[in-house]
Amino acid sequence: MAKTIEFIFDFASPNAYMTYKALAGVCERTGATVNYNPCLLGGIFKLTGNQAPFISFAEVRGKNEYNRLESERFLKKHQLNAFKMNPNFPMNTVSLMRGLIVAEEMDRKVEYIDTVLTAMWENEENMGDADVAARALTAAGFDGAAIVEKTQDPAIKQKLMDNTSAAVERGVFGIPTFFVGDEMFFGKERIGQVEEELMASA
Amino acid sequence: MAKTIEFIFDFASPNAYMTYKALAGVCERTGATVNYNPCLLGGIFKLTGNQAPFISFAEVRGKNEYNRLESERFLKKHQLNAFKMNPNFPMNTVSLMRGLIVAEEMDRKVEYIDTVLTAMWENEENMGDADVAARALTAAGFDGAAIVEKTQDPAIKQKLMDNTSAAVERGVFGIPTFFVGDEMFFGKERIGQVEEELMASA
Repeated sequence: MAKTIEFIFDFASPNAYMTYKALAGVCERTGATVNYNPCLLGGIFKLTGNQAPFISFAEVRGKNEYNRLESERFLKKHQLNAFKMNPNFPMNTVSLMRGLIVAEEMDRKVEYIDTVLTAMWENEENMGDADVAARALTAAGFDGAAIVEKTQDPAIKQKLMDNTSAAVERGVFGIPTFFVGDEMFFGKERIGQVEEELMASA
Repeated sequence: MAKTIEFIFDFASPNAYMTYKALAGVCERTGATVNYNPCLLGGIFKLTGNQAPFISFAEVRGKNEYNRLESERFLKKHQLNAFKMNPNFPMNTVSLMRGLIVAEEMDRKVEYIDTVLTAMWENEENMGDADVAARALTAAGFDGAAIVEKTQDPAIKQKLMDNTSAAVERGVFGIPTFFVGDEMFFGKERIGQVEEELMASA
């Protein structure tokens, strides 16, 4: 049986970029493939009452500094030298995420993810802006304007909402979350456990 | 040079018990020893504005359920079959922690830690109660009453406060925290990183 990592995915978190990159090694070692499940992080937060760590822990001395240190360690360990913290962070990703549903229907999901993540987390582009996003997509061989237009389709909007609420029903409260079968793992520090689970279920 | 894991330690967290147990394997594989640094979790929380996850995330759907799942996984992975969640949790540990400073001065620190952790996280004893604690210590070969009395010594109280504020100055915001040299690691999910750091600094 082919092994799959389901990745509850939104572009909004730098941790989504980092784990997207680091999972390549996991897939190589385990033979697994990644199934990206587009879910809106803002919607997950709204449905669960959760919020981004940089907000939750803003008043906790030392906590966000430590989280930054762990991000630096992760980048170094996985040699993710192209990563740049985007000065426009946090960006609203609802349009980009609807675009991912469009790309999914075009069977170009991974290519779309790669384009958006590169623009957002390597090239510091303000991808929350629809014009910037359309240009970045067009430069990568998509019809950027057509995708942005398609994001207004009610069926596309509904699909993203449905994915998001279904994920929350399964226990998801943040990004990145991974499922291997029914086993859920949250956070970039747990991709080692994802790999162990893939090995154990081989 | 002998390798040391500094463990910013309080009995109050089940995660302190779990990592105390799991570090035995790390020490065996790396030749490292553990230096327990008694710091009051309640004091760390007060100084940093942090709070226990079961409080911070009480209103976040799914988050504490997931944390419990990760505790179960950790217990299973490290075969910690004797662990029991104490029905008296959360317990005030200030007297027990002062007792740890007393035990440190008696050169019986590890024996004291083992006794208190066993009573608290295997035998479900209400160790926040001084009488219960005195009895448990006496049963383990300490003079329980004498230790409890010594916890009222101002120098002992001051030592615990000094340890705690010095830890916060170094970036500590919770328990369990580990230092390998100047490198800080927080949380039971990071003992793998502690081991890697010990290997790298060998």
